[in-house]
Order: sequence, then structure tokens, then C-alpha cells
Amino acid sequence: MRLLMIGDVVGRAGRRAVKVNLEDLKREFNLDLVIANGENAAGGAGITRETAQELFASGVDVLTMGNHVWNVKDAINYIEHEKRIIRPANYPPGTPGAGSNIFETRRKVKVGVINLAGRVFLQSLDCPFRKADEALTRIKKTTDIVVVDFHAEATSEKVAMGWYLAGRVSAVVGTHTHIQTADERILPGGTAYLTDLGMTGPRDSVIGVKKETVIDKFISQMPQRFEVANGPYQFNAALLEIDEYNGEASSIIRIQNYE
Amino acid sequence: MRLLMIGDVVGRAGRRAVKVNLEDLKREFNLDLVIANGENAAGGAGITRETAQELFASGVDVLTMGNHVWNVKDAINYIEHEKRIIRPANYPPGTPGAGSNIFETRRKVKVGVINLAGRVFLQSLDCPFRKADEALTRIKKTTDIVVVDFHAEATSEKVAMGWYLAGRVSAVVGTHTHIQTADERILPGGTAYLTDLGMTGPRDSVIGVKKETVIDKFISQMPQRFEVANGPYQFNAALLEIDEYNGEASSIIRIQNYE
Amino acid sequence: MRLLMIGDVVGRAGRRAVKVNLEDLKREFNLDLVIANGENAAGGAGITRETAQELFASGVDVLTMGNHVWNVKDAINYIEHEKRIIRPANYPPGTPGAGSNIFETRRKVKVGVINLAGRVFLQSLDCPFRKADEALTRIKKTTDIVVVDFHAEATSEKVAMGWYLAGRVSAVVGTHTHIQTADERILPGGTAYLTDLGMTGPRDSVIGVKKETVIDKFISQMPQRFEVANGPYQFNAALLEIDEYNGEASSIIRIQNYE
Amino acid sequence: MRLLMIGDVVGRAGRRAVKVNLEDLKREFNLDLVIANGENAAGGAGITRETAQELFASGVDVLTMGNHVWNVKDAINYIEHEKRIIRPANYPPGTPGAGSNIFETRRKVKVGVINLAGRVFLQSLDCPFRKADEALTRIKKTTDIVVVDFHAEATSEKVAMGWYLAGRVSAVVGTHTHIQTADERILPGGTAYLTDLGMTGPRDSVIGVKKETVIDKFISQMPQRFEVANGPYQFNAALLEIDEYNGEASSIIRIQNYE
Ligand SMILES: [Fe+2]
Ligand SMILES: [Fe+2]
Ligand SMILES: [Fe+2]
Ligand SMILES: [Fe+2]
Ligand SMILES: [Fe+2]
Ligand SMILES: [Fe+2]
Ligand SMILES: [Fe+2]
Ligand SMILES: [Fe+2]
Repeated sequence: MRLLMIGDVVGRAGRRAVKVNLEDLKREFNLDLVIANGENAAGGAGITRETAQELFASGVDVLTMGNHVWNVKDAINYIEHEKRIIRPANYPPGTPGAGSNIFETRRKVKVGVINLAGRVFLQSLDCPFRKADEALTRIKKTTDIVVVDFHAEATSEKVAMGWYLAGRVSAVVGTHTHIQTADERILPGGTAYLTDLGMTGPRDSVIGVKKETVIDKFISQMPQRFEVANGPYQFNAALLEIDEYNGEASSIIRIQNYE
Repeated sequence: MRLLMIGDVVGRAGRRAVKVNLEDLKREFNLDLVIANGENAAGGAGITRETAQELFASGVDVLTMGNHVWNVKDAINYIEHEKRIIRPANYPPGTPGAGSNIFETRRKVKVGVINLAGRVFLQSLDCPFRKADEALTRIKKTTDIVVVDFHAEATSEKVAMGWYLAGRVSAVVGTHTHIQTADERILPGGTAYLTDLGMTGPRDSVIGVKKETVIDKFISQMPQRFEVANGPYQFNAALLEIDEYNGEASSIIRIQNYE
Repeated sequence: MRLLMIGDVVGRAGRRAVKVNLEDLKREFNLDLVIANGENAAGGAGITRETAQELFASGVDVLTMGNHVWNVKDAINYIEHEKRIIRPANYPPGTPGAGSNIFETRRKVKVGVINLAGRVFLQSLDCPFRKADEALTRIKKTTDIVVVDFHAEATSEKVAMGWYLAGRVSAVVGTHTHIQTADERILPGGTAYLTDLGMTGPRDSVIGVKKETVIDKFISQMPQRFEVANGPYQFNAALLEIDEYNGEASSIIRIQNYE
Repeated sequence: MRLLMIGDVVGRAGRRAVKVNLEDLKREFNLDLVIANGENAAGGAGITRETAQELFASGVDVLTMGNHVWNVKDAINYIEHEKRIIRPANYPPGTPGAGSNIFETRRKVKVGVINLAGRVFLQSLDCPFRKADEALTRIKKTTDIVVVDFHAEATSEKVAMGWYLAGRVSAVVGTHTHIQTADERILPGGTAYLTDLGMTGPRDSVIGVKKETVIDKFISQMPQRFEVANGPYQFNAALLEIDEYNGEASSIIRIQNYE
């Protein structure tokens, strides 16, 4: 079976990129499931019902999130009831929404999706390694096809998670840095790995934001109001080929399309 | 002209990878200058006279450094007198060694090399943007061919530096995360850009270190003695094509070789 | 001569505390100069023309700032022209306003005031130690009475600054943590030292903010809108006795008043 | 009943300070229990069997720890079997040793002691607030007299913990910054609170370390080997008066002795 995982969708340009590219990719690759990281879908930070609906209408099946999950305040109510959105599983108990879920493809194949967030340079959450084990134990009762979106900053934490889950899940891919990495590989035991999917959003930017503002902030150290950049998009994703009988990945191919 | 820039060389496996691969690459591409990041050359952290000499003997012309530059204590005396090694230019005034230098290729072409270190999630150094300007002003009196190794963690800071120097230098490439990124491009004005060159060292590792130790540290939060991993190497680099008359880059190609 | 230094003034309760307490303290101690940290004067973060004027009207002579200096956007224009406000001297060149200044008491005694910001756990600014030297060299041409407000988080950085300037300035006092420390002493050479002046603002709070919100944020890790707490105030300050002929401090006394 | 809580004991000078001062204080105040933070007892970082025994012999009944708990490697085996040492309760499950324990005074009064570590600017541990609840539920079955050592950096996290546990424990005192704070108070419900006990160790130092080394590190940003400072000691502690029938604290008095 074929899964597509799309890197952090940023703002209007990102949502447009998803719409345009998914149409082609679905036709070309006969995709079974499309997962996108949606933490920056609404104006660059957070998600709204409208932006999520737009992404679902474009062909996304599952939205994963990250450290910006609660930036738009109303998301708390929305995510609680929208089963197609999952937020990092290692938020504390009592957090609205779910950190993993099992989704069914059109051909009725069950796929577990787990969202985790890193702690290095980021928030003080519960241990993502222990949470991965917990979610996995639950999901494995139903299906052996499991993919993980590990939303994290530090390469060490992401690579460590890849090795930790190697042979136990179909794929560990990272998000959050908004820059696609070139280290895709199949780890021993059939686990596809990529440190970061990259970003789907405005290309001529600093990770989605107007570049002049970010440069100015680094130099002046004065607060800036970040705005999503304009201009042509980039589409960053990875295509996974997974054996639907044992959950092992046989290939991971990075995708980069430009406007 | 053709420059090769090699990502952080980690330990014995990294030095072996440089030796084996440079032999072939020099022959194949007729390289004018070879620059490698050497901050992890000695046992995974820091550099020694012996490991530097080994890399020079393998065909490296210039070594850049990073946050691990002073890990081996004796490096202070060594770097002070070895003009082929530069350390981040934004260390405070009075720091041993130089932060940039002008090197001459065999064909007598002058190439300026600047080493900078990021501040996000890292040390409290002087502003890398202002230091880049300073070094550039000095170097531009001699040559228009200038390449920058920006040793930094955060993708935002690295991409911002790329745009900041776009059209003013031949190349801005990043190091430090030990994972090669897939965002190589030529920015407007002829500046080759890549967020991270990646790592040249033991492949089956967590950014060079034994993976079991790193995983254990993340889970147990107990201190661990990190050791460079064993096993086959990976060689990570980028090949730059630069117009030697105006300093503009026309192409940047990522290189990944495996044992 | 007698100087009063007041810890971070937070919001309405803090401004009221300044008004009420300064009236008494000025009468009782015949104060020559009153310096207050004003970075939280306006609604808990930043400063406005109105809140600054209110503090000046209450008897404050000089306002120092900190990491929140630019939170209220309009402060950029205001601070540029208001000589009685200084912001950390180690912001990059080109930053609006000044980082130090010389003030004259009613009895025509000249007092240099330097504001510095720490870098540990905070922003990437220029080196506060080197900047202290620079400002000191300039001020010492005019007066030997110099006091420093070092706005910093880490106790190590603050204590180090105290020892670094010991014997060279009249006083080094810290701000930013909003909790008064109990380590006041006269360092060798006549330098009064205190790691933190504390906070002048709502007492039953978490460093000025509504306590329920902060507790909830730590537990839920969800974003919260911080509001200045209500209720009775606390007034935190230190009284310095300085020899106006050689600039040496002879005593530092902590002050804590409550509503 | 009377409890004494001693701030981080640093090296030889700290252990000497404990010995000399406890002799007097025990006689003068008829102390029921003496608790000291021992994370820096051995050479400034970590603890050994020998340094712990020395502190017990001097009259310490319970040692709490902090982020340096595992610096001396052998402590893992020692702490596992020494019930008088507790380490932060919010280390992950499986960590050697205990995070809380119930101790009996000579007059057979039972006192629960909980050790917690902060996460802001520090390690990625489990939530200290949730862990406090867990430990408290267990201890409250046996005794209402409970004191907490919250080893943390950020004042916000420490004050928040004070308010979180107010009315539920006898005392929340902080450690880690090595600087005593002046904010002691009895929170509503009879909870004694102090943001930091301070340090028991070499006085003329930067939080225990040779001051020249620390200053040099801040300015040069080069790695330094930190050594515990020499010279006279300071003894930092707090004396708690607790009603042994309902566990409510009626007073907290800071203690600072100097050699
Ligand atoms: Fe993102
Ligand atoms: Fe993110
Ligand atoms: Fe490195
Ligand atoms: Fe590095
Ligand atoms: Fe403040
Ligand atoms: Fe502040
Ligand atoms: Fe300590
Ligand atoms: Fe500590």
C-alpha cells in the first residue's frame, strides 16, 4: 500500500500546494492514505475548522499536529470532536483530543497513526519514547501498519526515536524544522525513516515567514510580528510503500514540488 | 572552479571516509578546494594536531569548526598557529585563531572562507550576522569568491543567514545537526545554499554516537558517556560550481556515499 | 548619599506601590536618587509614555528596563527621546535609546546608571561584561558614582557580574526574577551587591501574574493569556549608602513593604 | 516540632559548615529533623557514600538531591539502598532510589519528605506537579506533616508549586540557584514557603565555584574546568515550626551563618 506524508502545511500557500499537488499525486500513485502535518495551517500557527476542512476537501485523510496545535484558541473544541486530527500523544493526561488513532483506507486496510512531540529545545511534555510504547501496544492489537509523526527540533532526538522504534513500526518521519532532510532510509526490520519531511508553504521565506522580518529579528533582537510569506509555494512530502500484510516499509521516496 | 564542502567529520570512521572518498572525488571532479568541518574529528568532539594532519594529508585544504572547537584543550595552542583551521568568527575578541581566511588554490585562485556559529539553542556569542558583514568587507578587498560555513542548530537562523548573504557570497552552507538537508538551491545573486551538509562518520548511529547510549539517555535522563559509534561510514558533502571571475555559484550538488 | 533601587514594577498594583511607598521613603531617608526597573510597568509587560510619566510623577528619577523593554510597540519612539529611561546597554548597535546615562541629583551630584541584560536562558545579545567595561570607561570620565542594574535570570551570571565589577562600581543589583534575594553584601572595594531586587507588584501572584493561570500552564502545557494579578501589593527595593567623594558603597539594605 | 532545611551543600567547605553549624543549632533549637540538599556534596557535583556518611554523622537526617544527583557514577548503587537519600520524584519510572519517603523523628513523629525537580531551563522530566499529587496521596495515608524540596531554576515554576501545594503540605522550599531568597512566608492553609534556601559552601565564589573561572567562561565562551572555591564558608538554611497535630507550619525563619 502507498501512504503520503506531507510536511508542515503553512498558511494559504501551503493549503493551495496541498490541493494542487494531491490531485496529481493521488492519480499517479493511487494513494491509500494521505497524512499531513497541520500545525501551521491557519495563518502560519495553529489550525481552524475552516483550514482543516479545506485540507480534508483537498484529499488529506489525517492531520497531525505539533507545538503550535493550540495557537488558535478555538482548536480546543474542534480537535476534541474531529477524529481525523491527532495531536502529540505525549501532552499530559486530560489534554483535548487524541494522540493516536486507527484509520481505515478505502480498501478497508487499517493504519495506526501516532503523533509525538520532542522535548529538546521545546516544551516540557511527557516522555515521547514511553508514550510511543503505550500507543503502540494499543494499536498493535488491531493492526501492524503504524506510522509515526515525531514533531521535534533536535536531530539527535529524532534519530534516536527512529532507532528506538525500528522494526516495530512501518515509519518514523519527523516534522517541525520546516526543512526537508536527505537521510531517508529503511531501518532494520522494515521501518522507513526521515528526519524531517520539510514544509509545504511559501518557498521564498524563512521556514514560511517573511524573510525580511526574521532577519531583522535576529539582528535587532527586537520583537517582530511574524507574517506568512507571499509568493510561490513548495510542496514537501514523502511517499511510503508499505507491505500491508506485515506492516514493513519497502521504500521511502522524498517529494519536492515547486510552483 | 569546483569546491567541495564536507559535513562534520566524526571520529575514526569519519576520517577514513574522507580519505577514501576524497581520493576518488579529486580525480573525478578536479577539485580546486576542499573544506571540511572538523569540530568532531578527534573522538567525536574537538580536534587535535594528529587528526587535523590526517585530514590535511587526505586532501582537505581548510578545516572549519563549531561549538566543539575547544573540547580538546590543547587545540587552543594548535589552532592559533595553523592557518588552515578557522573557528567561528563570532567568538569574542581575543579568542585564539581566526574566524575567516583567504586561501589560494593550486591554480592561484583566491577563496575567502568564513566560519560562523549560530546562537539559537547554542552559546552566547557575538552576532553572526554583523560578524559576517565585517569579515566580508575585509575579504572582498582581495577576492569575490567567498564561502560561509554557518554552524548552527535552528533552521530559521540558517535560512535567514542564507537570505542575508544572498548575492554577496558564493555559498552559505550549514553544519552542526549532522543530518544532511535536501534544500540545496541557488539563491538570487548566485549564492549556493544548503541548510546542512550532514555528517561524515559512522552511519548506524545517532548523529555519530552509539545509538543505544543516546536512546537510554533520552529515556532515563541519566548522564551517559557518549562514545563514537562503530561500523560502516557515511560521507556527506556538497559540490559547488563557482564562476571564478565574479564569484557566483552556478550549481550545488549534494553528495552521499556509503561504505 | 542615598540611592533607592526598586525591583521590577508590575502593572497597576506596582505603580500604586511606588507612589505610596516613595512618598514615605523620600521623607524618611532623604533620597538623592530613585531608580526603578520599569520593564513590566504597562500591564505586566513593557512600558508606555503614560505609565512612565506616572512613575516619574511618583518620584522615580530613572527607569531601567529588561527583556520586556519593547513589548509595547510604541516604546521605541518614546524611549528614544526620554533620557530618564535606559534600556540594556548590550542590545546591538542601532537599538533605540541609551544603555547608560549620567544623572544629576538635586544636590548636583552626578550618578552614572548602567542597564545590562543577561544572556543565560534569555536573548542573544552582545556580551554584558564587555559592554559594562565600555560604559564604565565613558562614565568614569565624569563621575565615580556608578550603579548597575543587571537584568538576568541565572544566579551564576549575576554573581559573576558582581565580582567582575567589584571595586569598580558603587553597586551591582539584579532584576528580572521578581523574587528578592537575601544575599546583599558589600564586595571588596566598596561595591554593594544583591542578586535580585525582587518585584513591586501584586503580592498573591506568580511573579506578578494570576497564579491560577500560571499553574494551569505548567500542568497543561497549553498556551495561556497571562494577566496581571489583583489584590494587595508588595514593594521590593534596596537602599544604598554611597560615599559621594569616592563612589564606594558602605551599606545596602533590602526593603520589603506590604499593603 | 522544628525542622531545619539546609540549602545545597557544596564540597568540603559546605560539609564543614554543616558540621559546625548543626552542633550549635541542634542544641539551641532542639531540632526534630534535619534535611539537607546534597546534590553538590562531593567536589561540587554529585554525592558519594563518604560525603553522605559525613553529613549523616554531622546530624543530617535526610538528604534530598537535584539535577546533579547522578554526577558521581557510583551514586546509582549507593542511593538505591540508602533510604535516607531521596532524589527528585519526577525522574522516569525505573530510576534508582525513591523520590519521597517517610521519616521518623526521635520522638516518633512521622514526617513525609518529597523531592521534586523543575523542568524550566532544566532536564526533560515527568511533570513535577502531577508527581507531587501522587506522592502526597501516598504519604497522607500515614502523616499530615509533609515537606517538599523543589529543586528548580525558574522562580515562576517554584512560586507556582508553592501555591499549587498551599494548604496541602507543611512546607515547599526551593533549592538549586544557590542564592537564598528573601520571600519566606506562610501561604494560606499553613504552608511555609521560600523560593530558595541558598547554598552552604564557599562564600567568596560564584554559586560555589571559583569566581575567576566562571567570569572567564562567561566572557571567553570557552569551556572551563569548574573547581569548588576555597575560603570561608556560608551556611544557608531555614527553620520551620510545624504543628505536629495538623501539619500546619506556623513560622519559617531564614538562617545565614558565616565563617
Ligand atoms: Fe511547523
Ligand atoms: Fe512545530
Ligand atoms: Fe558536529
Ligand atoms: Fe556542532
Ligand atoms: Fe520583570
Ligand atoms: Fe525581565
Ligand atoms: Fe546545587
Ligand atoms: Fe541543582
